[in-house]
Amino acid sequence: MNDTDFKIIDPEPLLIVLSGPSGVGKDSVINRMRERGLPFHFVVTATTRQKRPAEIDGIDYFFVSNDEFARMIEADELLEYAIVYNDYKGIPKQQVRNALTSGEDVIMRIDVQGAGTIRKLVPEAVLIFLTTESEEAMVQRLQARQTETPEGLKLRIATARQELKRASEFDYAVVNKQSCLDATVDDIYAIIVAEHHRVLQRKVAL
Amino acid sequence: MNDTDFKIIDPEPLLIVLSGPSGVGKDSVINRMRERGLPFHFVVTATTRQKRPAEIDGIDYFFVSNDEFARMIEADELLEYAIVYNDYKGIPKQQVRNALTSGEDVIMRIDVQGAGTIRKLVPEAVLIFLTTESEEAMVQRLQARQTETPEGLKLRIATARQELKRASEFDYAVVNKQSCLDATVDDIYAIIVAEHHRVLQRKVAL
Repeated sequence: MNDTDFKIIDPEPLLIVLSGPSGVGKDSVINRMRERGLPFHFVVTATTRQKRPAEIDGIDYFFVSNDEFARMIEADELLEYAIVYNDYKGIPKQQVRNALTSGEDVIMRIDVQGAGTIRKLVPEAVLIFLTTESEEAMVQRLQARQTETPEGLKLRIATARQELKRASEFDYAVVNKQSCLDATVDDIYAIIVAEHHRVLQRKVAL
Repeated sequence: MNDTDFKIIDPEPLLIVLSGPSGVGKDSVINRMRERGLPFHFVVTATTRQKRPAEIDGIDYFFVSNDEFARMIEADELLEYAIVYNDYKGIPKQQVRNALTSGEDVIMRIDVQGAGTIRKLVPEAVLIFLTTESEEAMVQRLQARQTETPEGLKLRIATARQELKRASEFDYAVVNKQSCLDATVDDIYAIIVAEHHRVLQRKVAL
């Protein structure tokens, strides 16, 4: 017996997908994780949507034109992309590859539809479904955002109804309670720690 | 959509098996978890082995006679039992049932052979393999215990070699570094938190 026998745990970096319906607080959770200095690479998504006042280009998103987004699609620079409420969102492939190569766990925030795509492309990804404690809480979040027209809001609620049914396709589900953002972050952190201790780990291939 | 749609996570109590070769520190880890007041039911194992000076009957183990152990086997009172280094060790079934019924997560410390039996009896159990960072560390632990004859020590080391090969049958592996008992406990706690967030949970049936 030599010490390699003790190396049961493969220290491969993980690809973590944080998903869930619009309005469950994916952005807030990611921002809190960043504030707490958790040692992950947070993928900066490319999007054609309008920048909200508090957002910073290159940190919250890469805000790009429709033309630039089209170029990225053509050049196969996106791991996954989708139209989300009339705006394009996509995951820059090279950014993810670079982070994994440097040994960092990668966290990407992605819509429910996109998470399904990642599941097929990268079966070893860890899929976390973020949800709220009730429909009311989700609606309140969307209203508070004040970036929706009444029609837009209606559309998001209807979509959320459908998306909730897809939770069973995920590995984990975490309830993001309005007043307990740190508890949500703790739960996600615990999931990542646990996944690093799984006996059967596979290297993420992109 | 009503609020039951949001109940993705089944709050069923978990059956957690902490296993690993002799000398990796299972007892120390369990004791530290207790000291930290973690909200679990720690199964008290029945054993025919000699009580060590620092141990307390009914807390560390139930120390029973060979006759009493034979009676427990006959009465089908044990979930699992095995001869471990010439002494019998067994898990009282009713104790585990009672804890699960009351909604508590149950942690049982069990040898590698016994963990395999639990896997078959209770497929939904969460199996954690505890190990040391090196063979040397494991030998040092066994020597420091000073409860082994030279032959006994030799036997345990030989057995550990075989048992290490069975780590792949477990769900998780955790390295218990000599000076980092709290880190080990943190890892185990994270695994339990994560398991409570798994989308596909099944109720433990005993």
